[in-house]
Amino acid sequence: MGKTNPGNFFEDFAPGQQLVHATPRTLTEGDAALYTALYGSRFAVQSSASFAMAIGYPEAPLDDLLVFHVVFGKTVPDISLNAVANLGYARGRMGVPVYPGDTLRALSRVIGVKENSNGKTGVVYVNSVGLNQNDEVVVDFIRWVMVQKRDPAHPAPEPEIPDLPDRVAPEDLYLPEGLDPRGYDPELAGSAHFWEDYAVGERIDHGDGMTIEEAEHMMATRLWQNTAKVHFNQYEQAKGRFGRRLVYGGHVISLARALSFNGLGNAFRVAAINAGSHCNPTFAGDTIHAWSEVLERADLPADEGFGALRLRTIATKDRACADFPYRDEQGHIRPEVVLDLDYWVVMPKAEGK
Amino acid sequence: MGKTNPGNFFEDFAPGQQLVHATPRTLTEGDAALYTALYGSRFAVQSSASFAMAIGYPEAPLDDLLVFHVVFGKTVPDISLNAVANLGYARGRMGVPVYPGDTLRALSRVIGVKENSNGKTGVVYVNSVGLNQNDEVVVDFIRWVMVQKRDPAHPAPEPEIPDLPDRVAPEDLYLPEGLDPRGYDPELAGSAHFWEDYAVGERIDHGDGMTIEEAEHMMATRLWQNTAKVHFNQYEQAKGRFGRRLVYGGHVISLARALSFNGLGNAFRVAAINAGSHCNPTFAGDTIHAWSEVLERADLPADEGFGALRLRTIATKDRACADFPYRDEQGHIRPEVVLDLDYWVVMPKAEGK
Amino acid sequence: MGKTNPGNFFEDFAPGQQLVHATPRTLTEGDAALYTALYGSRFAVQSSASFAMAIGYPEAPLDDLLVFHVVFGKTVPDISLNAVANLGYARGRMGVPVYPGDTLRALSRVIGVKENSNGKTGVVYVNSVGLNQNDEVVVDFIRWVMVQKRDPAHPAPEPEIPDLPDRVAPEDLYLPEGLDPRGYDPELAGSAHFWEDYAVGERIDHGDGMTIEEAEHMMATRLWQNTAKVHFNQYEQAKGRFGRRLVYGGHVISLARALSFNGLGNAFRVAAINAGSHCNPTFAGDTIHAWSEVLERADLPADEGFGALRLRTIATKDRACADFPYRDEQGHIRPEVVLDLDYWVVMPKAEGK
Repeated sequence: MGKTNPGNFFEDFAPGQQLVHATPRTLTEGDAALYTALYGSRFAVQSSASFAMAIGYPEAPLDDLLVFHVVFGKTVPDISLNAVANLGYARGRMGVPVYPGDTLRALSRVIGVKENSNGKTGVVYVNSVGLNQNDEVVVDFIRWVMVQKRDPAHPAPEPEIPDLPDRVAPEDLYLPEGLDPRGYDPELAGSAHFWEDYAVGERIDHGDGMTIEEAEHMMATRLWQNTAKVHFNQYEQAKGRFGRRLVYGGHVISLARALSFNGLGNAFRVAAINAGSHCNPTFAGDTIHAWSEVLERADLPADEGFGALRLRTIATKDRACADFPYRDEQGHIRPEVVLDLDYWVVMPKAEGK
Repeated sequence: MGKTNPGNFFEDFAPGQQLVHATPRTLTEGDAALYTALYGSRFAVQSSASFAMAIGYPEAPLDDLLVFHVVFGKTVPDISLNAVANLGYARGRMGVPVYPGDTLRALSRVIGVKENSNGKTGVVYVNSVGLNQNDEVVVDFIRWVMVQKRDPAHPAPEPEIPDLPDRVAPEDLYLPEGLDPRGYDPELAGSAHFWEDYAVGERIDHGDGMTIEEAEHMMATRLWQNTAKVHFNQYEQAKGRFGRRLVYGGHVISLARALSFNGLGNAFRVAAINAGSHCNPTFAGDTIHAWSEVLERADLPADEGFGALRLRTIATKDRACADFPYRDEQGHIRPEVVLDLDYWVVMPKAEGK
Repeated sequence: MGKTNPGNFFEDFAPGQQLVHATPRTLTEGDAALYTALYGSRFAVQSSASFAMAIGYPEAPLDDLLVFHVVFGKTVPDISLNAVANLGYARGRMGVPVYPGDTLRALSRVIGVKENSNGKTGVVYVNSVGLNQNDEVVVDFIRWVMVQKRDPAHPAPEPEIPDLPDRVAPEDLYLPEGLDPRGYDPELAGSAHFWEDYAVGERIDHGDGMTIEEAEHMMATRLWQNTAKVHFNQYEQAKGRFGRRLVYGGHVISLARALSFNGLGNAFRVAAINAGSHCNPTFAGDTIHAWSEVLERADLPADEGFGALRLRTIATKDRACADFPYRDEQGHIRPEVVLDLDYWVVMPKAEGK
């Protein structure tokens, strides 16, 4: 009796609560190959051991977003199985690089709760941390989700809303130790443009488009052991609001990041996710395009010849991005915008070479 | 001339005959990653090297069903290329664990034949064995298939039907050596329920549903190098009885097993397949749900703190399992039931911890 | 500004020009597993480390066509992003075997240009070479593509058309060093037919058919980091000539090669691609069948018990190959033929055993 996981409901969460998430996961070269097959990523550091070693990595690290998805996936059964909506991300920092053979696990702490006025749902804020087998942090992020109450009669808790920084401060960005840009070969990387070449306010249409298939987003989402039901069960979804399976938002993030190679080919590391919103739902059959704007340019704490760019990447469905679609004249996000992601990437500096 | 494999027909089989199957296969971390992508399995022993090592494995073993599918796949070109139906499984025992880098091959022995009264087909019983590169048995099972005769005029052989045990006896279940439940962390495994917590007769609705896509079942079936034509060739199948490609029955077994994590999260090893029936065909677009009943609880021969549960897992298509669908009022298996699997799993005992 | 890659146009190419292609790629067991999942290949040397080592390989090599696709994919952003058509291949020689862990990169040299009489397009001939991390050649081939001019007013260059050999001469075929056919087990390989058993002019219908799904060809093409837009963007393709995404021609080559196992099971190595033509477009939903003709039988330079067969393999869509479809009565290639591939394979000799 009661052996299946019903997930947590709003009244199960309280500030300060700690959650140990299930299913540690050893990542391998198999995951890296699937990541390439699913997204077509071409960043040279993750693609080539030789290239990675030339700038000081011991081998090719796994993609930063792969790490994010795996840690995120582990939090789903405890945090968002009964979620109505995934509302946002904040202060997501990538930690030590993850290599094939590393085993990741995830912990979360509840940092805020606020019941909605309808008395049926509430917002839960959690800080989730992914750790490797040496207990080193590989990713550390906040997200908040709207969760159903089990019992609408349950009294509302004292509201507690955490301070959410607009962005990770550049001095808090982590650069793996021992990296040296002098070994960075821009010809092999596929881009001649270094950190200094990007100006704040500059916009880049990444040009290409990628159509999503059901088999692809489900394989990806299962690979991250993410159990959110909306992605997998067409029989149930057919009865729901959209009549369709929803694509995991992280799948769109990875597609947009892979598309961004065309224009940001030297942005070899995602260092932080400052904020993110899945503005509209994505379904199989949608074709994703993306464009980016440079929001900020910053030095890194230990400047070893690398700098940080803060980007906004917008992904659309069934809409090319030559005119940088984002908000309409009333200031509303356009219905074809499916992702609004604010994040930091690391690039070699031309002067460091 | 005659260089392609026409498969064996009923009259090609005789009791005592030995078959050496082609295409040995080295399994790798790539296969493990694809298994996760295809089924979303979350059993911690197979997912995490750290978790596996904590209970005495040298590293994370490959999924038991992955091993079964690979060995089964090797038998297809010789046993079931001309099969009309895959009738059943019996006495399937898992042997030594398989790790990335191991190379598997398969042998079969014909243990029974019986021509059908129509004179056009017959039933062949085979005992198939999978071996690793050290000639250790990794899986050993019986299956029987209905096979076409090449020539209906060929005289019927003396019927010979092997004794098929209802189940593998608990004392014949193999537990990998050196396992110790004291390192088993139920929080990381995602389930607080140990062997003692399951009662004979208990039923568990695994809750979740998973929709199958053509690309998924074909990728899986090719990964097992299973060549049965009905899974791959829509051009031919369009002319046939269903008009569709059939999903490999083993794909449904793996989906049901992955779904069963929700309620059986500590059932970290499939130790035996007692019997199995693909009751109705499964097609792409079908959503699979599953439920299980505990049939029997048994000690293991070398009780090192682990026990065995005999389960019946039923998988359905386009039908939730909250009411445990199985047979209708006339005792017939319901048309939405696609799998009826009787098998043994191993779980840590609470007392062993 | 101008940070995205617009690709090269016809007037950007000149004979003698050297191109260093981006995105070196470390191939792994993950790629090998995906290759099996996508094509169902069953050649024992690539499938089994034990089998490969028995004939002198240090471990199982990656599939020759996987190597070809990866190197080809690297050339796309520089050579064929603005291609109207991929016109042909010539003199493609496979070099040293590639093993998991090897890192490949690609270089090309322009060896010919000829503007078309319409003044809008031209043909570019390139010789592309794939190298491993030790600068050993893994594949070396010529292809020619029709490319758009950026500016139709740009003056036509002096035409220069390279000599293209009909075939790679048998004495130029490379056999990995140290191979010994005495360890080759035909029973495990799945074919009793050796080099001597194939006669020039012999035709083999490979029998089986394989239906292509969108998710499959896109996953494959992304795995090779091939960026040609026609394969991925349904939103754009819907407006185009076919209204559909085109399947990468190399996907069909790999499917045909995998199907050819049934009849050519001992052809364990593709040694050269003499010529190839994607005669008609392939789309998802098409079912591929294949047949082969033996064009030539040759000894290898260092005869260590292996011989070479020159084959023509024809792949069709939605058409079985029992009657060896190829040209119609007017000598035109039939509309259901999608591939005409002329290549050399290596087989053990019976006498060498």
